[in-house]
Amino acid sequence: VKSDSGLTVPVVGVAGYKHVGKTTLICGMVQKFSSQGLRVGVLKHDAHGFVATPEGTDTHAFAEAGAMAVAIASPDGHVAGEWRLSTEPSLAELVARVGRVDLVIAEGFKSSEIVKWVLLSEIDRARSGYVMPDFCHDAGRVEKVLGWLVPGPPYQVAEDSRGVYDRNDIETICERTLQTFGFGVG
Amino acid sequence: VKSDSGLTVPVVGVAGYKHVGKTTLICGMVQKFSSQGLRVGVLKHDAHGFVATPEGTDTHAFAEAGAMAVAIASPDGHVAGEWRLSTEPSLAELVARVGRVDLVIAEGFKSSEIVKWVLLSEIDRARSGYVMPDFCHDAGRVEKVLGWLVPGPPYQVAEDSRGVYDRNDIETICERTLQTFGFGVG
Repeated sequence: VKSDSGLTVPVVGVAGYKHVGKTTLICGMVQKFSSQGLRVGVLKHDAHGFVATPEGTDTHAFAEAGAMAVAIASPDGHVAGEWRLSTEPSLAELVARVGRVDLVIAEGFKSSEIVKWVLLSEIDRARSGYVMPDFCHDAGRVEKVLGWLVPGPPYQVAEDSRGVYDRNDIETICERTLQTFGFGVG
Repeated sequence: VKSDSGLTVPVVGVAGYKHVGKTTLICGMVQKFSSQGLRVGVLKHDAHGFVATPEGTDTHAFAEAGAMAVAIASPDGHVAGEWRLSTEPSLAELVARVGRVDLVIAEGFKSSEIVKWVLLSEIDRARSGYVMPDFCHDAGRVEKVLGWLVPGPPYQVAEDSRGVYDRNDIETICERTLQTFGFGVG
């Protein structure tokens, strides 16, 4: 695990088991932050690899031919790309690559010691209460948890004194996130 | 047209009308250069805009929600991303974004004063001979043309003293490209 020091932009994580709703939550956060005029970047960690470029596209053809990097640019400032690096980039390297944004939301960076929201399903909560999911244990110090996000009441405060919030309460989740990084305070 | 000074990596262009075979040529060049151990990047300029991320993907969802940048990383060092910049990036900015490669092949950067191969169809050649296609006229000084690539003989030298080559002769095209940038000379 590389160090994540040297982050040039505030980064908030969204952690949780598969299919718990991380992508939906992140989309809600992106919408809310964007409506407030913030420029948001999203980083996603895919442990299983993925096909970035569909067959039939030029990008795919170039990558198949052996290109280490492919970038496509449009006059409206839209750039899409695909890179093959020699090793997994650190979170800091990815954040630097994201460029000029005000805030980065990171999904699935298990072993990064960033502050994070933890999404729990009803089953997660019933099974183990408000505990850091197993997969976070590498860097899962509870101090890094901004709060537990659950699908329904009760929303009482967990024993570790982290807050428990409705995962649909995007307003509060975003507000707390910004407070954490000192946005708009004062 | 922004300046393309400050290029950090050798960049060779591939110019030609639509459907003349630029992508096929570039794939052949990428394969050849890669087989020689060179790390190649490809930049493509898409004048008409494009959809980088197919519907149904998380990347698409994040971008739709308003994210200015989305990057997905795998443990094998594969990174894919999509960025919305405020304006069209210059070629130099794109080259910098491509990262650590030995050579960049650029398709469709009409108004960039990079050295370039010009692909001509038989119809192009019959119609106007070995002349810079119209769309290159902004920066289309013939001194920048490495040679004319045509689908068949004759391969005599054009009046302007640029070479005329079989577009399927990837070996020669790549060799000439490397010579231009001083690779492996001496």
